[in-house]
Amino acid sequence: MIQHIVNYAGIAVLAASGAVVGIRKGFDLFGIAALAALTGTGGGVLRDLLLGVDPPTSLQRWPDVTLCVVVSIATTVFARLVIKLTQLVLVLDALGMGFFATSGAAISVDHGATWFAAALLGIVSAIAGSVMRDVVARDVPMVMGPDDMYAAPAVLGSVLYVLVDHVGAQWLGVVIGSTVATVLRLAAITFHWRLPTGPYELIAHEHRERIEQRTSNA
Amino acid sequence: MIQHIVNYAGIAVLAASGAVVGIRKGFDLFGIAALAALTGTGGGVLRDLLLGVDPPTSLQRWPDVTLCVVVSIATTVFARLVIKLTQLVLVLDALGMGFFATSGAAISVDHGATWFAAALLGIVSAIAGSVMRDVVARDVPMVMGPDDMYAAPAVLGSVLYVLVDHVGAQWLGVVIGSTVATVLRLAAITFHWRLPTGPYELIAHEHRERIEQRTSNA
Amino acid sequence: MIQHIVNYAGIAVLAASGAVVGIRKGFDLFGIAALAALTGTGGGVLRDLLLGVDPPTSLQRWPDVTLCVVVSIATTVFARLVIKLTQLVLVLDALGMGFFATSGAAISVDHGATWFAAALLGIVSAIAGSVMRDVVARDVPMVMGPDDMYAAPAVLGSVLYVLVDHVGAQWLGVVIGSTVATVLRLAAITFHWRLPTGPYELIAHEHRERIEQRTSNA
Repeated sequence: MIQHIVNYAGIAVLAASGAVVGIRKGFDLFGIAALAALTGTGGGVLRDLLLGVDPPTSLQRWPDVTLCVVVSIATTVFARLVIKLTQLVLVLDALGMGFFATSGAAISVDHGATWFAAALLGIVSAIAGSVMRDVVARDVPMVMGPDDMYAAPAVLGSVLYVLVDHVGAQWLGVVIGSTVATVLRLAAITFHWRLPTGPYELIAHEHRERIEQRTSNA
Repeated sequence: MIQHIVNYAGIAVLAASGAVVGIRKGFDLFGIAALAALTGTGGGVLRDLLLGVDPPTSLQRWPDVTLCVVVSIATTVFARLVIKLTQLVLVLDALGMGFFATSGAAISVDHGATWFAAALLGIVSAIAGSVMRDVVARDVPMVMGPDDMYAAPAVLGSVLYVLVDHVGAQWLGVVIGSTVATVLRLAAITFHWRLPTGPYELIAHEHRERIEQRTSNA
Repeated sequence: MIQHIVNYAGIAVLAASGAVVGIRKGFDLFGIAALAALTGTGGGVLRDLLLGVDPPTSLQRWPDVTLCVVVSIATTVFARLVIKLTQLVLVLDALGMGFFATSGAAISVDHGATWFAAALLGIVSAIAGSVMRDVVARDVPMVMGPDDMYAAPAVLGSVLYVLVDHVGAQWLGVVIGSTVATVLRLAAITFHWRLPTGPYELIAHEHRERIEQRTSNA
């Protein structure tokens, strides 16, 4: 019961984030709804595709996409309110991310994925929707950039699930993995914990020189 | 017979639109042909992938991709002519879009998709090629933006097909759905019918403030 | 034995190119590793997805993704060195590209693809990882642009493999196709061989006029 509530809350929050990006980019109502559905269900659909679940569950059943469309309409109508609720949205999003990371890994194990693949597909379930949203909206993917940690908690939650499931009970893995991922994400937001970036100034600089050199060669 | 002609006309027009974008972006001949093939067959390939048709029909058989490559060469050689024929291209594209929306839904029903999934996959068949074209060429997807309605007719055609097929004959669903989608698209072009956008000025504005605030916090 | 070495060398070089782009874009360590894994395994994963190999081999087995993550860390730490080794990287990349084009086609034949689909999927194996890297990093795909030929050698290698396999031995097709593709790519780098572009100035110009016209109509 509770996992259904968390699952739908996660989809709804991801859909709302897709709708907000769609509104901000000046999409029309179809574009806003489509981006909301892609963001809300994209991670699960890609996971199902990689597992050979055809057609993916989120498309076969009506509730997931319908929820995304309803959320996109509500977000468009109450845009001002949604923006004011940023804190609540971030907390719900952390809950959903943690649950997707472990439930995605659990579904993968059930469909014959190796432990290694299950951990990867848990991560895919948690972050692929956000990446698709940003790629379609022509933004650099937020979860890859130097923002407060988002993907690292998903990685940890998914790996924890696999380790606990390997030893014993699946449900315990979901509970432990989800909780750790969600708490770590909330801590990252609160204390602005970030992963370091690479030596981009060095590369960007050298890269520019190499481009100029190549252009003058041609 | 007539459905084969409409099908190939739809693929050819989508391929031409991909070739035009490739030329405009300064792609080389491979890039132009690849973007034409992606645009022309991408919707059907993604639908087949989601249905578990492996490898997708457009890749297993040679005519679809070959047609796209031939069209891309012709578009490159006769670019000036293609641009002048914009009216004809728009009409053929409306025909193809309407047919893809319903034939894609029909193929999905035949492969075990639910009515709900079939309607979604009809929409995917009709618009995913255009979205892929724009994402790869680094444009914001045209079908999501505030232009003359394109996706809404596809949604209507796909849903109409499902309703009519549910009641009675599949072929009648294809005819009615395709016709309504095509006519609505042509009307949208003629009278500049558009879906409304969301309150993007509000969001973009608040978003800017939030970004500035976050940057100064960091 | 030698095909395993070439395969891992190809994955490692592609992963390094993904890591370099990730560093340059200012991604965090997760983003750099994720882009490296996407670039290194994306072509093979998409090929497996289109063939119905679920889950894709590169995800089921641990070495490929692990190699990509290790390479991304090494690239981040020794960024200055990697840039200095551009010549070596280009040679290894040409080796990997040639091998992926033919081995991807061979795997496709073994999984029931037609000759036509096998040639296409060989090309997909060789270039899709690079395209995904550039799309996620919000660059125009390098292999489609007017740079020294990259995709054309892959097309030639993949088609040669199919022709030779059709006549006789699969291993001979891999050797001939890979060698020709690699040599042609190295020649293209050395002598700056490029495919022509389309009449983009013509189209870009007319396109701009059409956009302005449409905007004033609205």
